Amino acid sequence: MPSEFQLIQQFFQREQAEQPAEGVLLGIGDDCALLQIPAGKQLAVSVDTLVADVHFPRDADPELIAERALRTNLSDLAAMGADPLWFTLALTLPEANEDWLRSFSRGLFKCARAYGIALVGGDTTSGPLSITIQVMGATQPQHTLRRDGANIGDFVLVTNFVGDGAAALAAIQNTQQFTDEHTDYLQQRFYRPTPRLAESALIRELASSALDISDGLVADLQHICDASDLGAVIDVENLPLSPALKSLNNDAQAYQWALSGGDDYELCFTVQPEKMADIAMLIAQGELQATVIGEMIAGGKVICEYEGEPFKLAKTGYQHF
Amino acid sequence: MPSEFQLIQQFFQREQAEQPAEGVLLGIGDDCALLQIPAGKQLAVSVDTLVADVHFPRDADPELIAERALRTNLSDLAAMGADPLWFTLALTLPEANEDWLRSFSRGLFKCARAYGIALVGGDTTSGPLSITIQVMGATQPQHTLRRDGANIGDFVLVTNFVGDGAAALAAIQNTQQFTDEHTDYLQQRFYRPTPRLAESALIRELASSALDISDGLVADLQHICDASDLGAVIDVENLPLSPALKSLNNDAQAYQWALSGGDDYELCFTVQPEKMADIAMLIAQGELQATVIGEMIAGGKVICEYEGEPFKLAKTGYQHF
Repeated sequence: MPSEFQLIQQFFQREQAEQPAEGVLLGIGDDCALLQIPAGKQLAVSVDTLVADVHFPRDADPELIAERALRTNLSDLAAMGADPLWFTLALTLPEANEDWLRSFSRGLFKCARAYGIALVGGDTTSGPLSITIQVMGATQPQHTLRRDGANIGDFVLVTNFVGDGAAALAAIQNTQQFTDEHTDYLQQRFYRPTPRLAESALIRELASSALDISDGLVADLQHICDASDLGAVIDVENLPLSPALKSLNNDAQAYQWALSGGDDYELCFTVQPEKMADIAMLIAQGELQATVIGEMIAGGKVICEYEGEPFKLAKTGYQHF
Repeated sequence: MPSEFQLIQQFFQREQAEQPAEGVLLGIGDDCALLQIPAGKQLAVSVDTLVADVHFPRDADPELIAERALRTNLSDLAAMGADPLWFTLALTLPEANEDWLRSFSRGLFKCARAYGIALVGGDTTSGPLSITIQVMGATQPQHTLRRDGANIGDFVLVTNFVGDGAAALAAIQNTQQFTDEHTDYLQQRFYRPTPRLAESALIRELASSALDISDGLVADLQHICDASDLGAVIDVENLPLSPALKSLNNDAQAYQWALSGGDDYELCFTVQPEKMADIAMLIAQGELQATVIGEMIAGGKVICEYEGEPFKLAKTGYQHF
C-alpha cells in the first residue's frame, strides 16, 4: 500500500509527465532518471538546501518557498555560464498537507516552465521541513564562468542592484519600514529572485570570472580573489542601489546591505580591459544591466573605498534567519 | 569570515581533492561542479534523503550513518544497471560538531573509495540532522535495468538473502533477540548494505527488469508489476533466508520480514526463460548469488504462495523508525 509520501511523489510525477523535456530518456518513477547530455556539452551540477526558519520563515507561502528554492539554485547555473536542463527535489515535510503541497508544486512547476528546467527525480520523506534541490545544466567547453580566471586590472561588475536581499529581510522581519510599493518590490526580490541566466549567456564569452552573490558582495568577491590569487577594490559610491534602497535616504545603511548583505543572487563578474568595450556596448544597448563597481588588484583581500578613502564595513558575514 | 559550515565544506573539499576522479573538470569550490560524461554513455541520477530518527537512530555512529547513506544511494545505481561516477552531499546539522564530522567523513570517503564514486559538490546547512545524497552514474544504451520490461513467464529472482533489513531493525530496536554473531551480521547488513553493483554488471544484459528492495519485496515487486502491466507469484518456500534468520526457528516470522520488511537493498529482477540458462551458469559458477523466487503472470497483483497454497501476509508496507 503506497504511503502518503509515495502518493505525493506520484503527484509530482503526474505534473512532470505533462511537460516533455529535452534529453529525458526516463523521468520520475524508476530507480534512477536516465538523461542524455547534449552532444559536445559538459554537465554543471549544484545542490542547495533550504531549511525552514534558517532560509525562509516556516509559515511563508509554499508557492513562494518553492519559487525561491528553485530560483536560487538556477542562479548557480547562471553563475557558471550553464543552460538549465534538469533538477531533482528532495522534500522533507512534517506532514503530508495537501494544500501546502498543491501550492508548493504550483510555484515549483511555474518556475520550472519559466526557465525551461525539468523535474526528473526526487524523494519525499517525513521530518522537519527542508528542501534540497540539485540543478543540472549544460556548459560549452571554454565558455564557463569559473571563479579562478580574474587578472590584475580586470574591471569588477555586478548585474542589476545590490543590497535588496538584506533590505528585504529587514522588511520581512519588520526591522525597517518601507512604503507598500517598495515592500512589495523587496518581497519579490527575496522570494522570486531572478536567476541571471540571460545575462550569463551574454557575458560567458567575455567575462574572466563570475559568481552569484548569495553571502554578500564582499564575502563573495573574496572567493574570486582567493581562487584567482588576487585582491579587489570596490568603489562604494558606484554600487547600484534600487529605488527602494535609495528611498531610505540612508546611504550608509544601504551600502552596508549592498556590501555585506546576502541573498542578492546578482552576478558579480570580472572583465579584462580589452573585452570591456563589448560589455559596455551590451550595457549601452540596454541588453545587459550591469555596473562597474571596482577593479582587481594585487594582494589577497577585498578593499572598500568611498571616493578614494577607506570605507569601514560593519560586518562581512551574513546572518540568515 | 567563513562560517563554521563553510569550514566544514572546505574540509570535505580537502578530502576530495586528494582523490583525482574520472570526468571531474571542476570539483567542489565553484558555483557548480563541471563534469564530463564518458562518450556514448547516458547519465543515471537518483536522490535520497535520510532523516534522523526516521531512517536511522539519531545517536548512531556517524561513520555508519555516512556509509548507509551512500550505500543505499549506490544501490539505486545498481538497480538501474549504472556504473557509479559522482555524488553530491547536502548535509543539515544542528551544530558543527567536529568529532561527529570527522567520523562521518571517514565513513563517507571510505565507502566512496571502495565503490569508485567521487564527491563533486555539496551544501552544509544548519538545522535538524538529515542527509541528502544524489548519485550520478553512467549507463550504456540498451543495457539499462528498467522496471517496465518484464514479460509473462519471466522468472523472478533476488540476490543474496531477503528479510535481513527488517530483522536488523528488530535487533537494533531490541524487539527480537539474536546471538552476538548474528546481531553483528544484521547490524552490518543494516548500516553497511552492499550495493549490488557487481551483480548489476553481470545481469544488465540479461535481465528484463530490475529494482532494489527498499520498501519490502512484495511492495517493490509490485512496482515492476505496475510498470510492466503484469502480476507476479512468489513461492514463499523458495525465499533465500540468511543463517541469522534461520537461527530463529520461526519461519513464519522470517518470511514476513522477507516479504514485507524493507531496507534489504538486494536486487529483485526478472529474466526471460531463454536467457535463464546464462543466469543459471553465472549462479552455478559462483559468480552470482541469486535465487529464483517466482514468476511473472497475468493480472496486476503480487500473489504469495507457500507450496502452492495462498500465503497470508500480515502487512505489505514497511514502517521505518
